[in-house]
Amino acid sequence: MRLRVYVGEREADGVPPNDRGMAYGDGLFETLRAHRGELPWWDAHWARLQRGAARLRLPLPAQAQAHAQARELLAGEDAVLKLLVSRGAGGRGYAPPAQAVPTWQLSVHALPPASAAGLNLRWCQTRLAAPSALAGLKHCNRLEQVLARGEWNEAGIDEGLMRDGDGWVVSATAANVFVLRDDRWLTPDISRCGVAGVCRGWLLQTLGEQAGETSTLSQHQLETADAVFLCNAVRGILPVARLGERVWRPHPAVAGLQRRLAAAHPAFAAAAPAGPEVS
Amino acid sequence: MRLRVYVGEREADGVPPNDRGMAYGDGLFETLRAHRGELPWWDAHWARLQRGAARLRLPLPAQAQAHAQARELLAGEDAVLKLLVSRGAGGRGYAPPAQAVPTWQLSVHALPPASAAGLNLRWCQTRLAAPSALAGLKHCNRLEQVLARGEWNEAGIDEGLMRDGDGWVVSATAANVFVLRDDRWLTPDISRCGVAGVCRGWLLQTLGEQAGETSTLSQHQLETADAVFLCNAVRGILPVARLGERVWRPHPAVAGLQRRLAAAHPAFAAAAPAGPEVS
Repeated sequence: MRLRVYVGEREADGVPPNDRGMAYGDGLFETLRAHRGELPWWDAHWARLQRGAARLRLPLPAQAQAHAQARELLAGEDAVLKLLVSRGAGGRGYAPPAQAVPTWQLSVHALPPASAAGLNLRWCQTRLAAPSALAGLKHCNRLEQVLARGEWNEAGIDEGLMRDGDGWVVSATAANVFVLRDDRWLTPDISRCGVAGVCRGWLLQTLGEQAGETSTLSQHQLETADAVFLCNAVRGILPVARLGERVWRPHPAVAGLQRRLAAAHPAFAAAAPAGPEVS
Repeated sequence: MRLRVYVGEREADGVPPNDRGMAYGDGLFETLRAHRGELPWWDAHWARLQRGAARLRLPLPAQAQAHAQARELLAGEDAVLKLLVSRGAGGRGYAPPAQAVPTWQLSVHALPPASAAGLNLRWCQTRLAAPSALAGLKHCNRLEQVLARGEWNEAGIDEGLMRDGDGWVVSATAANVFVLRDDRWLTPDISRCGVAGVCRGWLLQTLGEQAGETSTLSQHQLETADAVFLCNAVRGILPVARLGERVWRPHPAVAGLQRRLAAAHPAFAAAAPAGPEVS
């Protein structure tokens, strides 16, 4: 892992020890898929970061500097780039400083292994609290996800699905979820909790009338869906093959979406299955 | 502010840049009132830290080392000591490392100014999400409190009261709350959200049958209470004088509790009002 830390406009030796990121998780992050050193979805990630920063009144670095430094650090590689922005150094107490100088980090990570087979999921017991004032944001208060991901360590389980306190499905620990029912794609809305994923956003825009958001996706509806996939901006579209006893065979509609994604973001071209387009 | 950082047993130059505290707020903290360099409520704070660490499966430093280093850093002063423990360095992804080495910080801060008059409160619009898997813990996912505390910057407002999504009162942004109704003290329970404050715990134990926890304290019940106070381990018992249009005069029952607290924790002796004991 290569990592650089900046305080305001300047590269720094490390994170200020009284950083509000450490103290309160007072920050936002983005995790981007890089393709040959380029970041095809930079604009969508930066737009989400700006929305989060507006909600938290968090100062951001200059976009041009962050982008240039990210590309320099990537050095032409296929990799995962993480950008983390915190409110920076602060005193004791929750009051955000009037003149905060952001601490930001860029780090480059190896690509996750490609999975040829579909994912094997489980249900997490940890519930997402809702309604949350932080719904939709990719913020750094992630203990719910840490608890949920800590529920299993079997190598055969790829991801866990999370529900809110009322039992409605929200997402996986690190991915959004789509289900196919009656020839229509449904994904949990993220107005009460959950993250407005960049790949999720691309899918909703691409699918248009063929998709919808729902605040009441039940465990039963998911388990009886015709097809299920997870998605995020690092791994793209990931077909689900198993959830407990339930097994799904590869579905042409999922393969079709994977091919459309491959056309939109070159990093996902290698993962797209061959075959005729299915809308 | 004096600050020391440790990684495992060793003092370190700074926080690891890939620390899970920065990434996810994956940590816990305690804020203690020091009196002449001593920490009278150390045991209660450490017990709460242990409960949180058990819930998060977070490794802790050795208590003896943390206590000794804290007293050394305090150097005999009256001050606030903050102890922050994170899960330490980690890769990308929520899965907690199997062999985490905690990063921990000790910092010494100036005492907050003593307030002779009662507090002036406001209602916060930011709601606490519930039920939360993190209820009760003094964890480092504090964006809700940061948002709430960011709602005002008038010098005349001392604290803000927070409610959950259903409108039930939970706490102030950085203190628990007690109200007196029908000669009995009530405080919101913290099983769905909120923090199990150390001073709150002392009060519940001290008051015994004279106090109770409630999951349904309404805004109206608070505003029509005979007396209201906030409490935390740094500032002790803080009588509330005003909340919007509502004004409370000093109440002998609050003064009585302040004197009992002064007898239990010498740092609060100076703040305790004179007068006869009122049970």
